[in-house]
Amino acid sequence: MANKEIPYKIYLEESEMPREWYNVRADMKIKPAPLLNPATGKPINAEELGHVFCEELVKQELDDTTRLIPIPQPILDFYKMYRPAPLVRAYCLEKKLGTPAHIYYKFEGNNTSGSHKLNSAIAQAYYAKEQGLVGVTTETGAGQWGTALSMACSYFGLDCNVYMVKCSYEQKPFRREVMRTYGAKVTPSPSESTAVGRQILAEFPGTTGSLGCAISEAVEAATTRPGYRYVLGSVLSQVLLHQSIIGMEAKAALEKYGVKADIIIGCAGGGSNLGGLISPFMGEKLRGEADYHFIAVEPASCPSLTRGKYVYDYCDTGRVCPLSKMYTLGSSFIPAPNHAGGLRYHGMSSVLSELYDQGLMEARSVKQTEVFEAAEYFARVEGILPAPESSHAIKVAIDEAVKCRETGEAKNIVFGLTGTGYFDMLAYEKFHDGKMTDYIPTDDELAASLSKTPKF
Amino acid sequence: MANKEIPYKIYLEESEMPREWYNVRADMKIKPAPLLNPATGKPINAEELGHVFCEELVKQELDDTTRLIPIPQPILDFYKMYRPAPLVRAYCLEKKLGTPAHIYYKFEGNNTSGSHKLNSAIAQAYYAKEQGLVGVTTETGAGQWGTALSMACSYFGLDCNVYMVKCSYEQKPFRREVMRTYGAKVTPSPSESTAVGRQILAEFPGTTGSLGCAISEAVEAATTRPGYRYVLGSVLSQVLLHQSIIGMEAKAALEKYGVKADIIIGCAGGGSNLGGLISPFMGEKLRGEADYHFIAVEPASCPSLTRGKYVYDYCDTGRVCPLSKMYTLGSSFIPAPNHAGGLRYHGMSSVLSELYDQGLMEARSVKQTEVFEAAEYFARVEGILPAPESSHAIKVAIDEAVKCRETGEAKNIVFGLTGTGYFDMLAYEKFHDGKMTDYIPTDDELAASLSKTPKF
Repeated sequence: MANKEIPYKIYLEESEMPREWYNVRADMKIKPAPLLNPATGKPINAEELGHVFCEELVKQELDDTTRLIPIPQPILDFYKMYRPAPLVRAYCLEKKLGTPAHIYYKFEGNNTSGSHKLNSAIAQAYYAKEQGLVGVTTETGAGQWGTALSMACSYFGLDCNVYMVKCSYEQKPFRREVMRTYGAKVTPSPSESTAVGRQILAEFPGTTGSLGCAISEAVEAATTRPGYRYVLGSVLSQVLLHQSIIGMEAKAALEKYGVKADIIIGCAGGGSNLGGLISPFMGEKLRGEADYHFIAVEPASCPSLTRGKYVYDYCDTGRVCPLSKMYTLGSSFIPAPNHAGGLRYHGMSSVLSELYDQGLMEARSVKQTEVFEAAEYFARVEGILPAPESSHAIKVAIDEAVKCRETGEAKNIVFGLTGTGYFDMLAYEKFHDGKMTDYIPTDDELAASLSKTPKF
Repeated sequence: MANKEIPYKIYLEESEMPREWYNVRADMKIKPAPLLNPATGKPINAEELGHVFCEELVKQELDDTTRLIPIPQPILDFYKMYRPAPLVRAYCLEKKLGTPAHIYYKFEGNNTSGSHKLNSAIAQAYYAKEQGLVGVTTETGAGQWGTALSMACSYFGLDCNVYMVKCSYEQKPFRREVMRTYGAKVTPSPSESTAVGRQILAEFPGTTGSLGCAISEAVEAATTRPGYRYVLGSVLSQVLLHQSIIGMEAKAALEKYGVKADIIIGCAGGGSNLGGLISPFMGEKLRGEADYHFIAVEPASCPSLTRGKYVYDYCDTGRVCPLSKMYTLGSSFIPAPNHAGGLRYHGMSSVLSELYDQGLMEARSVKQTEVFEAAEYFARVEGILPAPESSHAIKVAIDEAVKCRETGEAKNIVFGLTGTGYFDMLAYEKFHDGKMTDYIPTDDELAASLSKTPKF
């Protein structure tokens, strides 16, 4: 229906909500490269993956041909509790910028986990429950994924074990308390509860942990106890599949008002939000039905797409997970300590990596001080205090809207506002106090970490 | 429209959103008693109030005859940014409780201020702007109201000065940072910036402040600088008027689906949320058009309605504001230090006090440990981590739904979920660690603070 007046927020009716996930791999002529078994260097099979991950999720991980996958009813029921997420017309931002562009954002922050992570957490918890598991293990850095998973596990009555990077555990006690509210066991990592944790503690007694170490502990905990599996909140193709709900809803909302997007922008860390948002639109582009300009936005301090290499690499620092072909900075790469904006993963979803390599989307990197400037500007104008991660997309959306002001083009710009920044106020404080700085890794630094990627 | 299937969330269309506030005083046969000038003991007039408050807000404060007041377009525009707030059908809670009752909650927490306070903040900021003021001053305890006001002032380009109780300023740095994000000046109170602050600091050098002291500083700052006025986030009749948007929307949403509420429940501190929610329903009751069972829920540690006296009292500890006839515990009453659940005001809105005195609503007090139990239960079942304040209403809504299970009655229960608890995790931590205790003031304690109420 075209020319209908567009409200500030488009909420789909329950009857209009998508009932299927869209698997973009099905429409890719050149598929993402398969995961490899780190021991053999050969494509990993379902049985091998099944030791770590839930059966049904393994199937989804390996399925690159089924286009639409029905969402099980219990997941649809849970989605109804916090979805549909609104597609917001940023009238105030447009007016403030004086741009002829029409700006829309898909807001995924209106739930207690504070981000889009819940979309995949509930799916992964559901399949674990269906398999008759006792519980799941995972790692969390800042705590967004851990919070989402604890909510999902609480809903299905699953035990939830979260290994939280020790420095975050200590510096972000509030995220930890949210997880405890949902009954999760939160362990600061490295811990005495796993062999790998004890080993790391013996070697580095004062360490405050890292995501790589927490992954190793979570995987060990899942594979050494009966009835447990490991789950992961980004990077994997199954996660992109679940997150396609974002794009499916956004597309339905735009179509309801006869709007065709021109530019679609998302922040990119592991790629789950960006991949989820663009998937159905990318499908149209792959099938030659429509064209879109996709922009992935990453931090200049962790620039996997813009400065990484497209090679096979370890997904985790501990090198226990399968190998993935992806844009990577090397699995030993860690962003500089002054980096506050999230999106700190060294690699990128293999699906997005392949799409990027085929020239189907653009990537840009932005500096964190300009990201926080955009965040504060947006908070004041649109009334939502954004997560630092989401603010990468805001920054580029504003840049594109300003370009439209200069050219006079009334483009339709859509971006993903993945979450709220209520648990990131330490970073905002640093910004307000003028203590936030930028860091861009040198070519030598990147070459050093990239030199350690495996040869396959 | 009856018998239409009720979705999990009812969002009104923009065209269905209320365009008027409802003034419940217009339908009261016995009006709330007038505010008194503390110097003369006589009803205070518009001119006298105008030294402290904005002109248009003074008019609203004194107007007890106009039933419907049009909401100015700029406020309606701002409302569109975060409203309509959904009326949620608590299907999951009903199922978990095994109750035949139908439970609905009006969720006001989906905005960056995290509560309903924004509804009045934007109205007060608008009228201040219209009057050509430079800025406004206010006090804040936990920071909810200060956050809401800073957002509203940022929108209209007003200077916003928040006096934040010093212990909150230090213990809740994140709320402070949200306010700074919106450009507010946040001063820990008592401060050296006012005469009353300096006096208090000289007398009590180590004090961590109190709400009463912060009010005194904010009022002084407003009345001694040209172009400033003082604004308040609860208690006042103008605030109830603005908050009637909650009830107007809830009523429209229920009517859209042919639902008639039986019980309406809200937490009560100063009364703004409860008053706003029940106003239009109370109007029907006052006009004899429908009957409802209203329940005000307050903390057992600060029980103004259930254990206070209905007399004229000071609205603030500093005794600079007008006197109000209300249910009060005495202006020197301060809840015990172990009280973590908000709603710590010694008195109650004069409108609600009068309605309660006429027997038009019930009041109950609940203990904070049972409030946090209800909060955690609700978070797990409905997926929203509630503010401690809102959890008072949750507790009683659950109680009433359990009663329905016992009697087999399918009552329609509506309660106000005023906000989220993301900035209250210290209290949740205390609860998880088993360190939360209850305190109920003794009769002697209440008699002592009540003995200091003025004689009028």
